[in-house]
Amino acid sequence: MTVKINENYLLLKSSYIFAEIAHRVDKYQKEHPDADVIRMGIGDVTRPLPKAVVKEFKNAVDEMGQADTFRGYGPEQGYDFLIEEIIKNDYTPRGIKLDNDEVFISDGAKCDTGNIQEIFGLDNVIAITDPVYPVYVETNIMAGRGGPMGEDGKYQGLVYLPCTEENDLVPALPEEDVDLIYLCFPNNPTGTALTKEQLAKWVNYAKENDAIILFDAAYEAYIREDNIPHSIYEIEGAKEVAIEFRSFSKNAGFTGTRCACTVVPKELMGYDGEGNPQALNPLWNRRQTTKFNGVSYPIQAAAKAVYSPEGQKEIKESIDYYMKNAEIIRESLTNIGLKIYGGVNSPYIWVKTPNGMDSWEFFDTLLDKAHVVGTPGVGFGPSGEGYFRLTAFNTLENTKEAMNRISKLSF
Amino acid sequence: MTVKINENYLLLKSSYIFAEIAHRVDKYQKEHPDADVIRMGIGDVTRPLPKAVVKEFKNAVDEMGQADTFRGYGPEQGYDFLIEEIIKNDYTPRGIKLDNDEVFISDGAKCDTGNIQEIFGLDNVIAITDPVYPVYVETNIMAGRGGPMGEDGKYQGLVYLPCTEENDLVPALPEEDVDLIYLCFPNNPTGTALTKEQLAKWVNYAKENDAIILFDAAYEAYIREDNIPHSIYEIEGAKEVAIEFRSFSKNAGFTGTRCACTVVPKELMGYDGEGNPQALNPLWNRRQTTKFNGVSYPIQAAAKAVYSPEGQKEIKESIDYYMKNAEIIRESLTNIGLKIYGGVNSPYIWVKTPNGMDSWEFFDTLLDKAHVVGTPGVGFGPSGEGYFRLTAFNTLENTKEAMNRISKLSF
Repeated sequence: MTVKINENYLLLKSSYIFAEIAHRVDKYQKEHPDADVIRMGIGDVTRPLPKAVVKEFKNAVDEMGQADTFRGYGPEQGYDFLIEEIIKNDYTPRGIKLDNDEVFISDGAKCDTGNIQEIFGLDNVIAITDPVYPVYVETNIMAGRGGPMGEDGKYQGLVYLPCTEENDLVPALPEEDVDLIYLCFPNNPTGTALTKEQLAKWVNYAKENDAIILFDAAYEAYIREDNIPHSIYEIEGAKEVAIEFRSFSKNAGFTGTRCACTVVPKELMGYDGEGNPQALNPLWNRRQTTKFNGVSYPIQAAAKAVYSPEGQKEIKESIDYYMKNAEIIRESLTNIGLKIYGGVNSPYIWVKTPNGMDSWEFFDTLLDKAHVVGTPGVGFGPSGEGYFRLTAFNTLENTKEAMNRISKLSF
Repeated sequence: MTVKINENYLLLKSSYIFAEIAHRVDKYQKEHPDADVIRMGIGDVTRPLPKAVVKEFKNAVDEMGQADTFRGYGPEQGYDFLIEEIIKNDYTPRGIKLDNDEVFISDGAKCDTGNIQEIFGLDNVIAITDPVYPVYVETNIMAGRGGPMGEDGKYQGLVYLPCTEENDLVPALPEEDVDLIYLCFPNNPTGTALTKEQLAKWVNYAKENDAIILFDAAYEAYIREDNIPHSIYEIEGAKEVAIEFRSFSKNAGFTGTRCACTVVPKELMGYDGEGNPQALNPLWNRRQTTKFNGVSYPIQAAAKAVYSPEGQKEIKESIDYYMKNAEIIRESLTNIGLKIYGGVNSPYIWVKTPNGMDSWEFFDTLLDKAHVVGTPGVGFGPSGEGYFRLTAFNTLENTKEAMNRISKLSF
């Protein structure tokens, strides 16, 4: 006998996109030590935690240092004091009713969107938009739902829903039978959003076809337009067909602090092998209580402070700051004739590369001629080829400077 | 088509042991509102975070509140500043050499011991000691390695290694072929430890039988005797056959703060379907980078402070405090003629119930006659029937009072 590895891991054809980017930038910097490279590639925030958050974070750390206020193991599902703030602020005002035990606090939407597939059988058919956040794809490959990658760059067992210039980046409903559909809107990487009517089509599709939508709302705080839903549960009946993921990473700068939540409504059902409905809420609860031990108490106290009046004011300022950058990027690139998407309800701008350049050619051109780093769209899936992602997370000064440099290029 | 759930979840026969305990205690308190119930059941610490930890924790939160020291996404594997302290303090002094990229920081040993099985194939045979920390069992059932539970209370696909009075709680080597062996020493729940010679037998077994040991060292800080290994890598050749899990939960009071680490040596190999060796270190790295986003920066800074001279002094005081409780429990129970195990190199005392009582009978007796709550051993596996766990994590005063009460009982 020998120990067998999970061979599905060997199927992963990682593009190692961020490693390749780092490699090319390092090489360029060595060859051009004076080049002032501006990074607009990784989707990470740069502005500090709000003061209101820092204050409560530290207060909670002090509590942990005193015997009478010390807290050991907390509930794996999160503290009610945070869950209640989330419901009161993010859901109730939109007419969405949730019980506390439908909201699960976690250490990140990456973890939750990666782990959620565990509660589903291996024989479900998975649909993803293309381009896509790679975690949805890779966690299903690792579990054995995707099979090998074909020459077209697609894992053969997954259903890809292309988002390209042809459909204005709005994915069409699947033609095949699919069971689980990952949707992220406002979208990473394309920065586009779905209107209420557009999202309602997906909810109806899921109802009619007994599918479930895994809805990643990590960027909802960047929505500026009225008709864009902040939660999929704004769509009537969505609680019967959707799980929703939220995060404090992008709205409150928690990328290095780690806190998020996942909503699993109690009416949401899967089916066992005999066709009996099985509620998904207790399955996720079982998953979390068995494999997770809750989010650090001081971090949950910090996240609660996001909802204080001062916290809300501060996060609004940060998001306004990033969205001002997004506007500058949009205007600058539009002015020089590039076709762009996104940046209106999200911090991402998705650029159609000019003159039929492929994603990496455009990457090399921007690095070499403007010393600006972005992310080649092909890194997010085959339909990302010929596109390029820029983020609004750098400073205003760097964003302006980057746009000045790019504006001087001729394509 | 309908969405299929992971049916393995339906195989879980949860004893809901802590829920059942809570239920019985609540009922008892309602019927006896004046009873001063002392809880010695759950393995959770009670003493606050060390002052040195609180200080660095708060400093790091302040850094997160300033633009020039703010940190966004950190390495999924953890910051080198913490990894280096772990290696320098926990491994180098014991003659164990580790590279930084063999140590993975996480938010808890529960998560890591639960997730580690993902990198292994579903066709491995799993061995567990019995009684056992339920996470090892249940995460394998959820993945599909355990099958249904038989009438003997054992999942039919798992290999149980009984630890009972007959073998002095030292598990015998498996007679069947097994691939993955979970060992936790000092043990939760029995509180017993293995000597270097005893552990070496397991390492040799694993080498000779191409098995891998998943070694949970969460309680190593409680070791008091010289010949008890703090790390499995103290045994020669163990890096070829063992993964080790550590935690800041029990040594530094991090149960509510969340930080741990897992060591996956680079020489450790599994095999693919064609019999080719595949290093496990990059597989775990892939798992963590895909499904995890790193531990909060302030928490890693706090964990680093555990290794400062002040931090070391403070955690030693806390552990001494708990171990004094353990000694009181040991002496008191021995004096009244109970047979006990553990409590010498761990905060757990494993009591053989008197007069052939079953675990729950003894639970009810202690609750009713002494108002003391412990954990029925049967909750940790069928071989735990007829045993009972008490923990040393309460206050000195409560521990003394509980022992006074129990000492007055006659069995």
